[in-house]
Amino acid sequence: MAELRQNVVTREWVIITPERAKRPDQFVKPKGIEPPLPMSSPDCPFCVGNEHLTLRETFRIGEGGNWRVRAIPNRYPALTDTGERVRKVDGIYRSMSAVGFHEVIVEHPLHNMTLALMPEKHVADVLRAYRQRYRAIRKDNRIEAVILFKNHGEGAGTSLVHPHSQLVATPIVPAQIRHRAEEAIRYFDDTGECVCCRTVQDEVRAKERIIIQTRHFAAFIPYAALSPFHIWIFPLKHVSSFEEITDTEIRDLAGCLKNVLARLYYGLNNPDFNYSIRSIPTRDLRVEYFHWYLTIVPRVSKTAGFEIGSGMYVNTAFPEESAEFLRKVATCD
Amino acid sequence: MAELRQNVVTREWVIITPERAKRPDQFVKPKGIEPPLPMSSPDCPFCVGNEHLTLRETFRIGEGGNWRVRAIPNRYPALTDTGERVRKVDGIYRSMSAVGFHEVIVEHPLHNMTLALMPEKHVADVLRAYRQRYRAIRKDNRIEAVILFKNHGEGAGTSLVHPHSQLVATPIVPAQIRHRAEEAIRYFDDTGECVCCRTVQDEVRAKERIIIQTRHFAAFIPYAALSPFHIWIFPLKHVSSFEEITDTEIRDLAGCLKNVLARLYYGLNNPDFNYSIRSIPTRDLRVEYFHWYLTIVPRVSKTAGFEIGSGMYVNTAFPEESAEFLRKVATCD
Repeated sequence: MAELRQNVVTREWVIITPERAKRPDQFVKPKGIEPPLPMSSPDCPFCVGNEHLTLRETFRIGEGGNWRVRAIPNRYPALTDTGERVRKVDGIYRSMSAVGFHEVIVEHPLHNMTLALMPEKHVADVLRAYRQRYRAIRKDNRIEAVILFKNHGEGAGTSLVHPHSQLVATPIVPAQIRHRAEEAIRYFDDTGECVCCRTVQDEVRAKERIIIQTRHFAAFIPYAALSPFHIWIFPLKHVSSFEEITDTEIRDLAGCLKNVLARLYYGLNNPDFNYSIRSIPTRDLRVEYFHWYLTIVPRVSKTAGFEIGSGMYVNTAFPEESAEFLRKVATCD
Repeated sequence: MAELRQNVVTREWVIITPERAKRPDQFVKPKGIEPPLPMSSPDCPFCVGNEHLTLRETFRIGEGGNWRVRAIPNRYPALTDTGERVRKVDGIYRSMSAVGFHEVIVEHPLHNMTLALMPEKHVADVLRAYRQRYRAIRKDNRIEAVILFKNHGEGAGTSLVHPHSQLVATPIVPAQIRHRAEEAIRYFDDTGECVCCRTVQDEVRAKERIIIQTRHFAAFIPYAALSPFHIWIFPLKHVSSFEEITDTEIRDLAGCLKNVLARLYYGLNNPDFNYSIRSIPTRDLRVEYFHWYLTIVPRVSKTAGFEIGSGMYVNTAFPEESAEFLRKVATCD
């Protein structure tokens, strides 16, 4: 039976349509269409030995040529860290100087590695680099929001295959981040609860959409998932911003994230995907009403004119079935 | 110089980055990669002679085998028109029965035709079909919003190449449509003006982002366009819902829309695109604060993790340059 569902965190409605549905295994990427990658590529600016091709490093884990993770400014930045915030308001025309940060986090020395296959300890190093860069950049008083994200595969918008993530820090609060914070405040005022705490607690209790649960995190398909295998990883404990993650939680998240990405890798044959870490605006540290989380969107479906005209999505897979499919994937751990 | 810009209608910020920019002509689709389509295809359910392959027609223009435009229920509907609206609220879990309408508007008898190449009179027939279906379906008291849209090309999410549009009518107000209405109300309360009226008047005065202006419409690249060649077509006169469009305005819009689509067709070599008509929720007929419009999004860029994590877009082309490029395209009229 088709159904409309509303996501209580985002307030977005989604149409879930079994009539058009594929079975979960129909989203598996066909095998053998991509040649295997080499361990190292002479032209890749992120490979060992080519460190001189990148801009001045902002952070690294590991010494000398034995680095494990590096952070560097993006050579083609969307925003740059020189100059002041200059805001212009001329009637309906509102602009701001493009000041901010745009960094790359090189996740591993090997060109052909991917988070799903890295040791948990290495994934933890990547997350430590995220946290260090978030904390360092948020201190800049021109910054209002920090977005950490990853584009995996050409279909997910990446141009360089060497495993890397990105950080963009903006001098304004993006409208969607502000809007979701406002909705969370309203929920808090109505109920006295953080809507994200309520969601993760209820999902843990309901079980049917959980992929895995670790000591500090739960990974699940949202009740109103926007697309097949849309995944949320939530901290079980209330924390409003990613930068507050503890060392213990980083180790635990590394295991949880690797496990989920390995389920996608083996279950769907290394699909293209994006993920992003959503926190509150940087000036609103430690609020009661919002909770940071990580959202993963495998690129197994297309959006079209309906989504552009309504902001609504059509999901051809029931979240409960997607979750069951991923729970059953053997991850070779 | 890179710049952040805010769209006063949607409140969304966009990063416009000339450092990463391509010149407008670099968005032109490579020639010769697609074989030409036949005028008719024996398996196509929308071709003349195959009318029996579609469900019961809801509207047609033209008699018998000489139809010009047909409306039919979608064979794989996202929503169906049987049953009542049944809403369930169980804590954070909110759902609604998937009741609504999902129709296809077959735009032309010829398999290989496209709006950019049709006579204006035929485009007007397509728009008349939109209006007739909008008016008929909005009367159903289960419906809260009607979204008209078109997916052109595989990259824009279509599976059937025969020229067609779609209509989806939902039993809830999509969150984005509600949210934009709320923002427009706030603007109205602050200024006493419709934000869309203000926008189109200022764009007509500024000229630099206008593609063409007709008697009743202006087509322009929004000041904070989300992507290269993102286009808005606005009525010059305040009308809150598409269903109120007059016969005179339909003839004028047909010319305007065909002209803009022909500029994309010839200028960018028939790119994949989506368009959508955005109106207010159907129960709010004739409001002062909002204005219907048509939005066109050519698929010349990709979204990735940054967009997923922030709702913000990065546009690699300045709207003023995109508009200038389209103004210069010869449309063979």
